[in-house]
Amino acid sequence: MNYGIMGNILRVNLRKERISVEQLEETFYRRYFGGRGLIAYFLIKELEPGVDPLAPDNKLIFVCGPVTGAMISGSGRHSVGAKSPLTEGYGEAEAGGFWGVELKRAGFDAIIIEGKAVEPVYLWVHKGEAEIMDASHLWGMEIKKSQETIRNDLKDASVKVAQIGPGGEKMVKYASVINDMNHVAGRCGMGAVMGSKNLKAIAVKGDKNVNVANPESLRQLAQWMARNVDDVAHDLHTYGTGSFMNVYEYTGNLPIHNFRDGKFLGVDSISAQAIKEHVRVGMGTCFACVVACKKEVKVEEPWNVDPAYGGPEYETLAALGSNCGVDDLKAICKANELCQKYSLDTISTGVTISFAMECFEKGLLSKEDTGGVDLSFGNAEAMVKMVEMIGERTGIGDLLAEGVKRAAKRISNGAEKLAIHVKGQEVPMHEPRLNKGLGFGYAISPTGADHIHNIYDPLFARRIPEQYKGLGVLEAVPVGDLGPKKIRLFKYVMIWRSLDNCLVMCVFPPWSVQQKVDIVQSVTGWNTTASELMKISERAINLARIFNIREGFTEEDDWLPPRFFQPKTSGALSSTAVNSEKLGKAKTIYYGMMGWNKQGVPTRTKLEELDIAWAADEMNMK
Amino acid sequence: MNYGIMGNILRVNLRKERISVEQLEETFYRRYFGGRGLIAYFLIKELEPGVDPLAPDNKLIFVCGPVTGAMISGSGRHSVGAKSPLTEGYGEAEAGGFWGVELKRAGFDAIIIEGKAVEPVYLWVHKGEAEIMDASHLWGMEIKKSQETIRNDLKDASVKVAQIGPGGEKMVKYASVINDMNHVAGRCGMGAVMGSKNLKAIAVKGDKNVNVANPESLRQLAQWMARNVDDVAHDLHTYGTGSFMNVYEYTGNLPIHNFRDGKFLGVDSISAQAIKEHVRVGMGTCFACVVACKKEVKVEEPWNVDPAYGGPEYETLAALGSNCGVDDLKAICKANELCQKYSLDTISTGVTISFAMECFEKGLLSKEDTGGVDLSFGNAEAMVKMVEMIGERTGIGDLLAEGVKRAAKRISNGAEKLAIHVKGQEVPMHEPRLNKGLGFGYAISPTGADHIHNIYDPLFARRIPEQYKGLGVLEAVPVGDLGPKKIRLFKYVMIWRSLDNCLVMCVFPPWSVQQKVDIVQSVTGWNTTASELMKISERAINLARIFNIREGFTEEDDWLPPRFFQPKTSGALSSTAVNSEKLGKAKTIYYGMMGWNKQGVPTRTKLEELDIAWAADEMNMK
Repeated sequence: MNYGIMGNILRVNLRKERISVEQLEETFYRRYFGGRGLIAYFLIKELEPGVDPLAPDNKLIFVCGPVTGAMISGSGRHSVGAKSPLTEGYGEAEAGGFWGVELKRAGFDAIIIEGKAVEPVYLWVHKGEAEIMDASHLWGMEIKKSQETIRNDLKDASVKVAQIGPGGEKMVKYASVINDMNHVAGRCGMGAVMGSKNLKAIAVKGDKNVNVANPESLRQLAQWMARNVDDVAHDLHTYGTGSFMNVYEYTGNLPIHNFRDGKFLGVDSISAQAIKEHVRVGMGTCFACVVACKKEVKVEEPWNVDPAYGGPEYETLAALGSNCGVDDLKAICKANELCQKYSLDTISTGVTISFAMECFEKGLLSKEDTGGVDLSFGNAEAMVKMVEMIGERTGIGDLLAEGVKRAAKRISNGAEKLAIHVKGQEVPMHEPRLNKGLGFGYAISPTGADHIHNIYDPLFARRIPEQYKGLGVLEAVPVGDLGPKKIRLFKYVMIWRSLDNCLVMCVFPPWSVQQKVDIVQSVTGWNTTASELMKISERAINLARIFNIREGFTEEDDWLPPRFFQPKTSGALSSTAVNSEKLGKAKTIYYGMMGWNKQGVPTRTKLEELDIAWAADEMNMK
Repeated sequence: MNYGIMGNILRVNLRKERISVEQLEETFYRRYFGGRGLIAYFLIKELEPGVDPLAPDNKLIFVCGPVTGAMISGSGRHSVGAKSPLTEGYGEAEAGGFWGVELKRAGFDAIIIEGKAVEPVYLWVHKGEAEIMDASHLWGMEIKKSQETIRNDLKDASVKVAQIGPGGEKMVKYASVINDMNHVAGRCGMGAVMGSKNLKAIAVKGDKNVNVANPESLRQLAQWMARNVDDVAHDLHTYGTGSFMNVYEYTGNLPIHNFRDGKFLGVDSISAQAIKEHVRVGMGTCFACVVACKKEVKVEEPWNVDPAYGGPEYETLAALGSNCGVDDLKAICKANELCQKYSLDTISTGVTISFAMECFEKGLLSKEDTGGVDLSFGNAEAMVKMVEMIGERTGIGDLLAEGVKRAAKRISNGAEKLAIHVKGQEVPMHEPRLNKGLGFGYAISPTGADHIHNIYDPLFARRIPEQYKGLGVLEAVPVGDLGPKKIRLFKYVMIWRSLDNCLVMCVFPPWSVQQKVDIVQSVTGWNTTASELMKISERAINLARIFNIREGFTEEDDWLPPRFFQPKTSGALSSTAVNSEKLGKAKTIYYGMMGWNKQGVPTRTKLEELDIAWAADEMNMK
């Protein structure tokens, strides 16, 4: 169709075994782009409010963006969206790798999955068409074997597979969707929705080109990053994520013992540096990306860890490591591998286990509950065991598979206070008591606690980084500030970073604002600017919010768990916490800056300003 | 100091004969840029609310922008600002030519004039310094002679002079400031403020370079315009303004007989084509501009018109021509020359004369009042005579020198209904009954009726022009629409065009949104984007609004004169008019889209979002 866009959306109804292809106008793509923009559009338009996320009427959407598949660092991503079984609101997760590019090359910008298959199936997408295939022989398989089997069945070893493991099949509320074995759309429980549809996998094979309007200017941009990656992304390129863990422990940013404590002596043994020294056998990458931040680890004893499953990211090292009190790197590598095999989000898995450990410490869970496992903080074997039990939903794993919010409610007796989540989604591994803007971002994100489309306060505390200049934010703001200057910084940076949800691009290659504009111009040929792109992102953010409002979310859901209003027990944050009054004021300022009313509801005028007046009517349906 | 910026602001107190130079930080310039941004900043910070615009306590500000003096089409401009004696609110006018560039080259980004000189003076700015010079021998001179005299006195024929003629000296409420003989900062009566200060002229001579961060990329942009000007600005380049007058007459856009009637048979005799054929002797330009749209006309009988004063623009042709019923091109050329000699705004002059003509027709003014002049519509000699009488403030000219709002109040008996102004400023030459968005722009502009920083509806009625793509406006909107889609279009385009008030650039060279971003990047070296530039413009618009609110303006001042709520008597608009209910609704939508409250007052949160929280406190001073 157009540069950057294939122009086709694949719609598959699993119950009716009906497959169709829809074509949309160029202006539709330019308005909603991809990723969050398209997901929110279709979820609002096509879901009935109040639908059970695991019922057949929920829809599961796989979607690329206009730059997916262009030869430029950061473009090898796709999004997976649905109503979330974890938050019961707007759900979305992104993954890197090669699968999204392959989907585009198969001729599609998106796949919308409807209904539930009677028996397990997988979808085979190739040559602009799709087939629903029997998957009864794949059900129960962990993903490496499943991918091998699919490739054998299709007699093509180059087929790209996005799929769920047993955790997804069993609808663990925070199950992920994994593609290319070690690239994970982790958050919001998209894998559970996939499981609820009896859909094991989507295999794709492309044979088309993703056309680019201006290959020469794109090539120059790609060359710039290749030449400068070692300067502008040195640590990511050398270590991957997780190279600052000792700093994080020192400043208080590192979650320890279910976000409770401030000291963790074993931090150096679980860092990316330790991984490089002890267990790393290679570094992988995503399509066309020179940052190449993906670790591959190999362990032989006491556990065997297969490097095909990649290696732990920072979020995983902290969630399954320090936050569970575990300083055994090999155990973390094993737990990471198990999360991939079962298709579990490592953040939610880790936080759920740390929650269970604290319950165990407090006597809210006993050995009887755990099936004899000593679920003490720091017990590496117990941590690994719990991942397995969650993935299999056996014993206490069945309870923990529901996530901390639901598990705490079941356990009760004050367990709710130990459940570290926002809107039902477990909190990731940066500390709101230190980074007040980031914590605010956890509170207001439409997907619950989210660290990606957020600010990282220290980055803006001394000067505005060159990468972000061009947003009109000129003044540094201290990490602990939560006043109007911080909220303004948050709004501008968060909208810009959320653009990556629409493009769909990775936040890691440190493109400047103008460079990213140049990338979009080069790929699409659209005479676009940062101003238009900011509005596209803002439009998608508003749509996600409207979806939640229609589901009954209110401003009360924009809040942090009680733990963050108390200091840590030790370390740098032992005398500071989030101030609830300041957080409340920050919300009011933010709502105002977003053009929302005092209850955080986008006004009709704001939606008209964003060219989505239709969405105002959707909120009246409630 | 920095690329594009000289870093020095010259402050001159005429009463105390005190001259000083102030230096401001780079972030200050990046936040407020120049033009409207700087003017509004200083007027709010330094004027007492309620100050008499013609009292010594008003300040007169001459200001450039970051691109002034860079070698690129559109950069040869400056702004003149003060509290307006015409509107008693925020006043600002822009002019092209060479004076602004010379001011930059003399080492200054701006001059702030304070106080009133005891005797007539002029200011002589050169080599980073300034001197207050006696101007008693210049007082009363028309501007050509005055410029010659100053150059002789200073023994330098290349000195650039911005000055007032006798109209400014006599404080005609809509007196202009003229530079380089035929470049005019016309609107808002800035020349009257200059006259009130006994300041005849500012002569400047530069000896510095305006440094450019990336000369090569700027050169490429300049070359692009040079190569494409005949395609992208063909009519402006060939005819200057005024080549569509017959179309305007046909569609109803052309004001005729004080905006009352719809047919004007003589239209072809006063168009830019007629000028080219009959009276044009050359085309002039502004600094570095390849559009070169400035007519030079020569007439020898019955009047002598000196080509040194340029020639009439479209606004002048319509205001002194069709709107007065005058189809005598030579008379219009003479009246235009007189407006320059006296330093009068041609729009306000023409509309004031047409107002007087209608009063004469209706018997509200008699021959006794006019000193025997037959002030009938179409009487070319009478029109020319009136310009002279206004410039000299003789006879009825003294009344008309007050502008239509004050004159109508004096005449009374229903004359107010014939006074076509917004906020006291006479309406320019595009028709609100045809162009609903443009009319809306007249109503809400902080300077009263303004056609430049506005939309021209037909441009966006069939498709969005390539030049404006990149603003995120994808959909054409009919000329007559005044609903949310039109207001959104208006907001985005108006903010973008208002950026030219800050830059300070001309709207005529049709740079695309991204090209203008590229120009700013190339000149300043700032890693800026369209997103930041839109916010800079929005910031300046909010400051101008806040100035007016502090002066007591309310949402009631955002309105159109009664004539536009009635159809024209004939022609294309004989059965259509502005609908007051729709206009009221449009205001509410616009206020909302701007982040203002229902009374059109910017909220504190909006000002925090624009990084000008300090301005919220200014409104409490009232």
